[in-house]
Amino acid sequence: MNNTEKTMDKVIALCKNRGFVFSGSEIYGGLSNTWDYGPLGVEFKNNVKRAWWKKFVQESPTNVGLDAAILMNPQVWVASGHVGGFSDPLMDCKDCKTRHRADKLIEDAGGDANGMTFEQMSAYIQEHGIVCPNCGSANFTDIRKFNLMFKTFQGVTEDAKSEIYLRPETAQGIFVNFANVQRSTRRKLPFGVCQIGKSFRNEITPGNFTFRTREFEQMEMEFFCKPDTDLEWFYYWKDYCKNFLIGLGMKEENMRLRDHEKEELSFYSKATTDIEYLFPFGWGELWGIADRTDYDLGRHNEVSGKVQDYFDPETNEHYVPYVVEPSLGADRVALAFLVEAYDEEVVDAEKNDTRVVLRLHPALAPYKACVLPLSKKLNDKAGEVYALLQKRFMVDYDDAGSIGKRYRRQDEIGTPICVTYDFDSENDGCVTVRDRDTMQQERIKIEELAAYIENKIAY
Amino acid sequence: MNNTEKTMDKVIALCKNRGFVFSGSEIYGGLSNTWDYGPLGVEFKNNVKRAWWKKFVQESPTNVGLDAAILMNPQVWVASGHVGGFSDPLMDCKDCKTRHRADKLIEDAGGDANGMTFEQMSAYIQEHGIVCPNCGSANFTDIRKFNLMFKTFQGVTEDAKSEIYLRPETAQGIFVNFANVQRSTRRKLPFGVCQIGKSFRNEITPGNFTFRTREFEQMEMEFFCKPDTDLEWFYYWKDYCKNFLIGLGMKEENMRLRDHEKEELSFYSKATTDIEYLFPFGWGELWGIADRTDYDLGRHNEVSGKVQDYFDPETNEHYVPYVVEPSLGADRVALAFLVEAYDEEVVDAEKNDTRVVLRLHPALAPYKACVLPLSKKLNDKAGEVYALLQKRFMVDYDDAGSIGKRYRRQDEIGTPICVTYDFDSENDGCVTVRDRDTMQQERIKIEELAAYIENKIAY
Repeated sequence: MNNTEKTMDKVIALCKNRGFVFSGSEIYGGLSNTWDYGPLGVEFKNNVKRAWWKKFVQESPTNVGLDAAILMNPQVWVASGHVGGFSDPLMDCKDCKTRHRADKLIEDAGGDANGMTFEQMSAYIQEHGIVCPNCGSANFTDIRKFNLMFKTFQGVTEDAKSEIYLRPETAQGIFVNFANVQRSTRRKLPFGVCQIGKSFRNEITPGNFTFRTREFEQMEMEFFCKPDTDLEWFYYWKDYCKNFLIGLGMKEENMRLRDHEKEELSFYSKATTDIEYLFPFGWGELWGIADRTDYDLGRHNEVSGKVQDYFDPETNEHYVPYVVEPSLGADRVALAFLVEAYDEEVVDAEKNDTRVVLRLHPALAPYKACVLPLSKKLNDKAGEVYALLQKRFMVDYDDAGSIGKRYRRQDEIGTPICVTYDFDSENDGCVTVRDRDTMQQERIKIEELAAYIENKIAY
Repeated sequence: MNNTEKTMDKVIALCKNRGFVFSGSEIYGGLSNTWDYGPLGVEFKNNVKRAWWKKFVQESPTNVGLDAAILMNPQVWVASGHVGGFSDPLMDCKDCKTRHRADKLIEDAGGDANGMTFEQMSAYIQEHGIVCPNCGSANFTDIRKFNLMFKTFQGVTEDAKSEIYLRPETAQGIFVNFANVQRSTRRKLPFGVCQIGKSFRNEITPGNFTFRTREFEQMEMEFFCKPDTDLEWFYYWKDYCKNFLIGLGMKEENMRLRDHEKEELSFYSKATTDIEYLFPFGWGELWGIADRTDYDLGRHNEVSGKVQDYFDPETNEHYVPYVVEPSLGADRVALAFLVEAYDEEVVDAEKNDTRVVLRLHPALAPYKACVLPLSKKLNDKAGEVYALLQKRFMVDYDDAGSIGKRYRRQDEIGTPICVTYDFDSENDGCVTVRDRDTMQQERIKIEELAAYIENKIAY
């Protein structure tokens, strides 16, 4: 099944029915595009996060992790530019009172608002006769800035002094800790600092299931290096990121690397590439890899007055490191892996027998195995195998219905192997192992089962 | 070293120097008692969370996980009672303009505000001549309610309609998903739903390092069971929680189980026990285990109008399950394990040689091992051992300074074993393994190293 044949409806239905993702606050009618990860979803997403951590932290000779607070001193967002610049251009329809993004209206009308001032956007909308998509009237207010940061108040008074923000990105938590990390780990350049955590953006138009949500999780690295080695590292990490996705089963035909044109780049960035994935709703950005030069550390040095720099013991110089940032959306890449894995396979055309199978990389599968007693009479003995495997892996147990039905249930949630305990098992100490993808079966010693699974899920 | 000899200053200094915990937004002067977990802290805290998940989800035959959104429909907090009742009684000093918790002032004066109305508190303060701790004046405003939930605005307008809250607990995300989880997993009662995630409370007086912070992480389970089996399960989980802590190295002498008196219980709770730990600043609550009956599900059924209940296939009845909730603070229990592990040991009294050693359970240690080349000449070969182990575990590498100094650096961060690669290693394929606690050394085959570590960190 290729990606153009897959639909979001099918993926979403599977997610809801099998406990990957539920609508947030569902019994209260939801809360605009919030989502809760269910029993299978939390295991799956944790596996995605663990895989990233393994490849970017655990196996790296240079990189370390960090987990900074969501609530930060508001000056952080002044320095980063989010207080001044992180906003959408909004206007109201005076007639029906709906609110719209001016740049979106222009884009929907075939224009490009990139680089336009508010006045230019207003003029364009008037000249091109763009009307309210809700009521058809052309009676708009002026455009005004709408900051995308969620704000809240800390402490007992609600005034400007106590106003703080929910972080709109995890990256700044890394920048403000550069000196702390370098000092405490005695790291030499180059080294990366990696972080997984929630961020919040008050998007006007969240949507596409878990792709664009106001609350989302990021996996970001800031890779600090010597000035003028940044482009070299940019290319290194771009490749590394792409290979990470391929290594976990993403097909190259469903990915594209989009290099930003010069005009599209932030003024401080030497190069930026987006890794995009072909979702059923179109290409969507998963990963932004950016050469951010010394812009962020420089801004914090300026605004905080505390200089974070690096003393190079080889050259006896102090300098502000350059930075390459690969920034990945955890929910997005999880959704991409789900879409990628979704498959409908004709098992027997004559009998009209089709199975849904989630071909997840075994390392990402919620359950690594499911133990099935051939008969409920074998529950005690099969339960021992289950308990044995549970010590090592997330494992499911299913004794309801025919073996065939149970296989199919596990196929649908991506369990790489089913382990059947039958009436011979007690005598020969073996179980039948059935592979999700090939549906082939083989007989394996119970004592070798853990090693067999370990080997299967390696990556 | 027993807990009364330990000081927070020493633990905090170690945390900052070695990269367990940094002050949040430090270069901007911080943000009232926010903390960032550094490179070692994030590994350590992740290990604590993984240990909990392993014992409460992975190894459980009944329990599953969940990861609900932080932002929920505000009606959730109406049903849970947080909109109406989750507040502190505050009053201002009219003279110096400082703000105070009335119940705290009464407590500090030796009284007990539990169960008092605002009028009764005001009267008590007047009668007992309680004055402002800041300026000594007795000129207070009336007491008013201060809700502890952080609020923010979702969407483009800032009015009551768009007001939402940062969740003050993870538990409600589980309650509102009871039916989703039960349906999608086809679970029979009893079963537990476990969740790890951030919560936020606008505490008036955060403090004691990471013990009481406005942003904090919880590890909560809601264990759903048949009515009238709840007390039985309450005792079961109370024991289970205690054993979890003991299994990871917490000494019973530093723990106490405090059963709530009848007067102290919430009106819906049949029993509640706090597991407290002896911190250097006194006893502090880690875990609250509560029999919450059918209160929470009942409230949501009432407010949402959507009935979440359970159809019991054995009795053919519909009923609302009862709930036992063990609720653990992730940051608190992590801090408790750090305090518990902190030790200063006299190695050689005559030479005045003392070492600081963090006697963390190996499963919780940030690094499972550190690879040390005896000489920098051996970096290539030792690097191969390092790379080999990194595939499996978080491992450190250190080639700076004398072996003795390097051992001590690893002792201080709790690394269970040091692996020294020496000039014989290439010939005999062996390395010297030195134990953190006993300081004993033994010679081990490189090919057996991974299994040796695996065995060491098992729990």
